[in-house]
Amino acid sequence: MRTVSIETGVTKHAEGSCLIKVGDTHVICTASIEERVPPFIKGSGLGWVTAEYGMLPRSTGSRMRREAASGKQGGRTVEIQRLIGRSLRAGVDRVALGERQITVDCDVIQADGGTRCAAITGGWVALKLAVNKLMKAGLVVSDPLVSPVAAVSCGIYAGQPVLDLDYPEDSEAGVDGNFILRGDGQLIEVQMSAEGATFSRAQMGQLMDLAEAGVSELVAAQKAAVA
Amino acid sequence: MRTVSIETGVTKHAEGSCLIKVGDTHVICTASIEERVPPFIKGSGLGWVTAEYGMLPRSTGSRMRREAASGKQGGRTVEIQRLIGRSLRAGVDRVALGERQITVDCDVIQADGGTRCAAITGGWVALKLAVNKLMKAGLVVSDPLVSPVAAVSCGIYAGQPVLDLDYPEDSEAGVDGNFILRGDGQLIEVQMSAEGATFSRAQMGQLMDLAEAGVSELVAAQKAAVA
Amino acid sequence: MRTVSIETGVTKHAEGSCLIKVGDTHVICTASIEERVPPFIKGSGLGWVTAEYGMLPRSTGSRMRREAASGKQGGRTVEIQRLIGRSLRAGVDRVALGERQITVDCDVIQADGGTRCAAITGGWVALKLAVNKLMKAGLVVSDPLVSPVAAVSCGIYAGQPVLDLDYPEDSEAGVDGNFILRGDGQLIEVQMSAEGATFSRAQMGQLMDLAEAGVSELVAAQKAAVA
Amino acid sequence: MRTVSIETGVTKHAEGSCLIKVGDTHVICTASIEERVPPFIKGSGLGWVTAEYGMLPRSTGSRMRREAASGKQGGRTVEIQRLIGRSLRAGVDRVALGERQITVDCDVIQADGGTRCAAITGGWVALKLAVNKLMKAGLVVSDPLVSPVAAVSCGIYAGQPVLDLDYPEDSEAGVDGNFILRGDGQLIEVQMSAEGATFSRAQMGQLMDLAEAGVSELVAAQKAAVA
Amino acid sequence: MRTVSIETGVTKHAEGSCLIKVGDTHVICTASIEERVPPFIKGSGLGWVTAEYGMLPRSTGSRMRREAASGKQGGRTVEIQRLIGRSLRAGVDRVALGERQITVDCDVIQADGGTRCAAITGGWVALKLAVNKLMKAGLVVSDPLVSPVAAVSCGIYAGQPVLDLDYPEDSEAGVDGNFILRGDGQLIEVQMSAEGATFSRAQMGQLMDLAEAGVSELVAAQKAAVA
Amino acid sequence: MRTVSIETGVTKHAEGSCLIKVGDTHVICTASIEERVPPFIKGSGLGWVTAEYGMLPRSTGSRMRREAASGKQGGRTVEIQRLIGRSLRAGVDRVALGERQITVDCDVIQADGGTRCAAITGGWVALKLAVNKLMKAGLVVSDPLVSPVAAVSCGIYAGQPVLDLDYPEDSEAGVDGNFILRGDGQLIEVQMSAEGATFSRAQMGQLMDLAEAGVSELVAAQKAAVA
Repeated sequence: MRTVSIETGVTKHAEGSCLIKVGDTHVICTASIEERVPPFIKGSGLGWVTAEYGMLPRSTGSRMRREAASGKQGGRTVEIQRLIGRSLRAGVDRVALGERQITVDCDVIQADGGTRCAAITGGWVALKLAVNKLMKAGLVVSDPLVSPVAAVSCGIYAGQPVLDLDYPEDSEAGVDGNFILRGDGQLIEVQMSAEGATFSRAQMGQLMDLAEAGVSELVAAQKAAVA
Repeated sequence: MRTVSIETGVTKHAEGSCLIKVGDTHVICTASIEERVPPFIKGSGLGWVTAEYGMLPRSTGSRMRREAASGKQGGRTVEIQRLIGRSLRAGVDRVALGERQITVDCDVIQADGGTRCAAITGGWVALKLAVNKLMKAGLVVSDPLVSPVAAVSCGIYAGQPVLDLDYPEDSEAGVDGNFILRGDGQLIEVQMSAEGATFSRAQMGQLMDLAEAGVSELVAAQKAAVA
Repeated sequence: MRTVSIETGVTKHAEGSCLIKVGDTHVICTASIEERVPPFIKGSGLGWVTAEYGMLPRSTGSRMRREAASGKQGGRTVEIQRLIGRSLRAGVDRVALGERQITVDCDVIQADGGTRCAAITGGWVALKLAVNKLMKAGLVVSDPLVSPVAAVSCGIYAGQPVLDLDYPEDSEAGVDGNFILRGDGQLIEVQMSAEGATFSRAQMGQLMDLAEAGVSELVAAQKAAVA
Repeated sequence: MRTVSIETGVTKHAEGSCLIKVGDTHVICTASIEERVPPFIKGSGLGWVTAEYGMLPRSTGSRMRREAASGKQGGRTVEIQRLIGRSLRAGVDRVALGERQITVDCDVIQADGGTRCAAITGGWVALKLAVNKLMKAGLVVSDPLVSPVAAVSCGIYAGQPVLDLDYPEDSEAGVDGNFILRGDGQLIEVQMSAEGATFSRAQMGQLMDLAEAGVSELVAAQKAAVA
Repeated sequence: MRTVSIETGVTKHAEGSCLIKVGDTHVICTASIEERVPPFIKGSGLGWVTAEYGMLPRSTGSRMRREAASGKQGGRTVEIQRLIGRSLRAGVDRVALGERQITVDCDVIQADGGTRCAAITGGWVALKLAVNKLMKAGLVVSDPLVSPVAAVSCGIYAGQPVLDLDYPEDSEAGVDGNFILRGDGQLIEVQMSAEGATFSRAQMGQLMDLAEAGVSELVAAQKAAVA
Repeated sequence: MRTVSIETGVTKHAEGSCLIKVGDTHVICTASIEERVPPFIKGSGLGWVTAEYGMLPRSTGSRMRREAASGKQGGRTVEIQRLIGRSLRAGVDRVALGERQITVDCDVIQADGGTRCAAITGGWVALKLAVNKLMKAGLVVSDPLVSPVAAVSCGIYAGQPVLDLDYPEDSEAGVDGNFILRGDGQLIEVQMSAEGATFSRAQMGQLMDLAEAGVSELVAAQKAAVA
C-alpha cells in the first residue's frame, strides 16, 4: 500500500473539498450542495449524490486530449464517474439527507494508477465535510453518512496478488480489480476483470483479503482527515 | 434459470450470427470480420475483438429514446459494450486469430433483464461461427477461441440469492452482479454492485455458486448451437 | 414482386408490432402510444404519428458504422424516417386519433433493397394494431386509419421497368422510385429520381402501373395480417 | 409563374456565382472547384458535383435558429441539399468533367416558397459558369454539362393545380411537388407528396403539364444568364 | 479608408436590415425583434441585444467548410459574435428598450478583411431601423440607442500604421487591432494584438488617431443610411 | 496588486509545470512537448506553441457545468485559450524552437478574477521550464523565448482606475481590460472593453500606466520562479 495523505479545505468555494494523494496519484475532490434534485426523484423527499470525474490533460505520462475539446467524455470516464456516484450513494441514508443534491467532482491532477479508487476515497471525505456543514446549519438533523466508503485496487501481477497497483503494475497486470467497501467491512462493489488472462475463485479470495486490509487503512486516513 | 434458446444463421450477410433468447430477453448477435485492425496494434500480428451494443427503442416496457437520434450513446451503453468486448477477448488467442478484427454487434430486440449477459453468451456464438468460417477458408489455422465465454446475472432479491434475474427482480434487487466465466470454470469478470444495500463475503460466495451452475447450462447451449 | 410475409406481435412490450419480410429485406416495426403530443399541436385536439428508422450495423453486406456511435443520423436515415412519418400520417384522421402520439420505429434486421418501402408497409400494420388497442379500450371511438398505406419501389433496370427492386437491381438502376399509395388507390407520395440517367413521362406511367399492381398485393397482405 | 431574374458574378471569389430571384425568393448560388474528389471515386477518373444548402436566420418571416449554432443541419436541410446535388449530377457527364469536384452552395437570403427549386435552377447557372472557366483554361475539353437542369414546384391549392407556389400557397396546399427536368424535357426527379390529403393519377398529370411549362421558362432564363 | 456604402431594407422579413459594403467586404445585417428575453434577465424590465455572425462558405478566396455541416461554430466565429453583441449593447439604454430582445445577424457574403468591423457598423444600422419601428408603433417611447456604434480596423503593415486593412494587408500585418467607438468619440472596445511582432505605446496612439478618423466617416454613413 | 506566488514542478509528468496563485486565483499550468506540428506548418521548420484552458467545475462560487459533460467548450473558454496561445507565441522565436509543438494547459483550480491573466503569466513559466529541458538536452540551441510574457487586468471600478481586479471588482467594473506585455515593456495584446459604460483615451492611458507597473512585478516573479 502506497503512502496516503488527505488535505482538506483546498478550495475556498466548495462546501467540502480535499486533495487526496495515494502515492503519486493526486486527485482534487470537491462536494457541491444544491437545493434541488434530478427530475426522477422530485417530490420524493429523498436526496441524491452524484459524481463527475476528469483528468487534467497532462496528469498522465503523455498528454491526453482534453475531453471538453474532443466534445464528449470517453467511455472510461463515463464508466468511472458512474462507479463513483453509485459507490458513494451506497453509504448515504437518502431520507436523512433530505431532498437536495450533492455533486462530487473528482479531478485527477497527477495519475499513477488507481485514480478511480482515490477518487472514491477522497470523494467521501469531501462529501462528509459538505454534510457536516449542512448539519451545523441545522438543515440536516441526523447524519446521512451511515459509514465511510473507501476503495482500493488489487490485481495479479507477475503471478502474485498485489495491493494498490501503481501505473506500471496496473499496465502489466493480467487481472485487476476494484473493491469498494464500507468502514464496517460490508461490500459495496466488487469489479474484477481479466484482460488476457483469467482467475480462479481462490485467487479472488486472496485479492479480497488484501482489499479488506487496504480499505481499513484508508478508512483510518478518512477519519483522521474529517476529524 | 430461464429457458435458453440459441438460433444461428439469422442474417444472411454476417459471417456469424444468432438470436439468443433467455426467457423474454431476445438479442440478435452478429460477428463481422474485417481484414484490418485498430491503429494501436497495427503491425503487431495480433487480432482484435470488439463489441457494440444497442437496444431497439421499443425493446423496453416504455419507449426509450433512440441513441442515434439523441446524438450519443448513453453511459450505460458504453459501459456494457466495453464489458462485452473485454469479456470476449478473454477467451481469444489473439496470436492465433491473426491481424484482423471481428466486431460483435449485440442488438436487443426485447428486454426483460440480463441483456448484457445474454449479449455476451450469444456474442460468443456469433464469434465462434465467424471464426469457423475463417478456419474453413484456411485463413486461420488453429482455433483462436480457447474456451467458450458465457455470462449470467445473480442478485439478492427479497433477501435471497437468485440466479438469472428478470426485469422485475432486477429492479428490486438491492445487490446484483454479473459473472462472466469461461467454459473451463475460470473467471473472466465479476461485477457485483449494491444500490441502496450492501453485501457480505458469505453472500458473495453464494452468488458465485449460483453463477457457476448457471454458466454450465449456458455453455452447454452454446456448444449445441455451434455444433 | 418478391414474396411478402408479415408476422405480428413480435415483441411483447409494444402496443403494435410486426416483422415484415419482403424477400430478403426484413424489418421489425413497432408502434408506441404516448398520451402526449409535440409542442406545436398541444391543445389542438389533434393526434400525431411520427416514425424513426434505423439499420442494424450488419443488416448490410459489409458492416455499416452504428449511427449511435458516430453521433448522428446520416442524411439518408433522416430522409427515410421523414418519409415514413409523412406517408403514415396521410392515412390518419388526426381528429379521430385524439391528442396522443404514436411513434412507429422501423429497424432493419436484414437489408436487400426496398427497406423504406417495407418499413412503410410494415409500419402501417404496427400502427393499425396499436390503434385497435386504443379502440378496444374505448379511448378512440371511430377508426382513425381511413385506409391502409403501403409502399413499393420500381425502377428502370437494364432498360426495363421493374417492380420491387432488390439490392443488386437497385444499385444498377439508373432510375428508381418509391410509390406510396392508399388502399383505395389514391396516391400519397411519388418519388422518382435518376442518378446518371433520365426518364420520360411515358416511362413514369409504366412505373406507376407496376406500382399500383404491387401495392394491391401488399395491401392484401396487410389486411390478412391485421385480421 | 413568378418573375424570374438571374444576376451572375455576384461574388468575386467563386468560380461561378449568381443571385437568383423567383418572386420574393432570393438565393445566392456559388460554385467552387477543387482539384480533388471524395475518397469513394479517387482514381476513377470521374468528377463529382455536390451541393450544400442553408438559410440565413432571418430569411424567413420569423427568425429561425442558425444551424451552425444549434450544432447540426436539420432534416429538411439535409434532404434539400441531397436533392440539389443529385439533380445537378443528372445533367453532368462525369467523365468529361474529369477527376475534380465542384461544390455548389445555395444560401437563401430571403424565402417565399420554392427555395429548393430556385436553388437548383440558380445552382446550375453557377455550375455552368465554373465549368466555362475550366473549359476556357483548357482543363476540360468537351462540355460536361449535357443539358440545363431546372426545377419548379407545383401543388394543389384550394382544389386547383397551381404552378410555382409562394409561401402562403405552399403552407396551405394539401399536395405539393417538386419537378426537376433537363432542358430537353427529360425528367430527373419527381417528388410529389401529400400532407393531409391524397391525389389521383389524373391530378399528377395536370401538375406535370404545369411543371413542363414552368421549366421551359426557367431554362430560357438560365440560357440568357450564362450567354 | 475604403469606399463605404450602406443599402437598407434588403430583406422584406426583418424588422431592420442592410447590406454594408466596405470595399470588397460585403455583409448582410438583419435585426429581429422578439418579445421575450433570455432567462437571466426575465422580469428585470431590461432589454437585450445579441448578435450572431456567419460567413457563406464561398465568401472567401478558397471555400471554407460550412459551420452548420461541421457541427459547430469555430473559435473565431464565437469570438466575433460575442464582440458584436457586446459592442452594440454598449450603445443601448436597456431600460428604454424595455423587456424584449433584438438579435442582429451578420452574414458575410464576400470577405476582404475587416468583416467584424463591417458587421458592427452595419449591425448598428439594422438595429436602429428595428428600433425605429418599435418607436413608430409606440412600443418604445424614448430612443434606446444613445449614440451610433461603429468599428474600424487598423494595423501596422510594412512598418506603417494603416487604416481599414483589406485582406492582403491584414494577412501580412504584424499588429492589428479593432477599434469600436460611439458617435460621440467615447471608446467601447479596443483590441490590439500582435502575431509575430510587438508594438509600443506610441504606435498604439498612432493607430488610435487613425481609428478615430475612420469611425467619424463611418458614423456619417450610418446617419445617412438611417435618415 | 494581489500577492503573487509561483510554485514550479507541481506535476511529475509534464516537461514544465507550475501552480500560480494571484490572490485567491489559482491556476495549474503545464507545458507538454510533442515532436510534431499542426498540418499547416508541417515541413516549414517552424515550431508552434498553443494553449488550452479549463476551469474545474467548483473553482467558482457556484458549481459550473463541466464542459466535457456539456459536449463543448463555451465561447468564453475558446476566446481565452486563443488569447493565451497568441500571447505566448508573441514571445517565441519559432525558428529557434524548431519543428515541434508545445501545448500549454491552464486549468483553474480556484477562481477569483483574472484567471486568463494568471494563466498567461503562469503559462509562460511552464513554457520556459519545458524549453530549458529542450536546451539542456541539446535539442534546441539558442533560447527561443526572447522575453518573458505576462498579463494583468485593469479596469475602472467605482469611477477609479484599478489594477488586478478580483472577482467582486470585476463583476461591477463598467470597463475592464487585459494587458499582455513582454518583459521589455513592448505590448503584445491590449483588450479593453466596456459593458454598460464607455471610456476615454485619457482613461485608457491611466490603465496602461497601471498595467505596465503590474507586469513589471509579475515578470520579476516569473524570473525568480524559473531561476
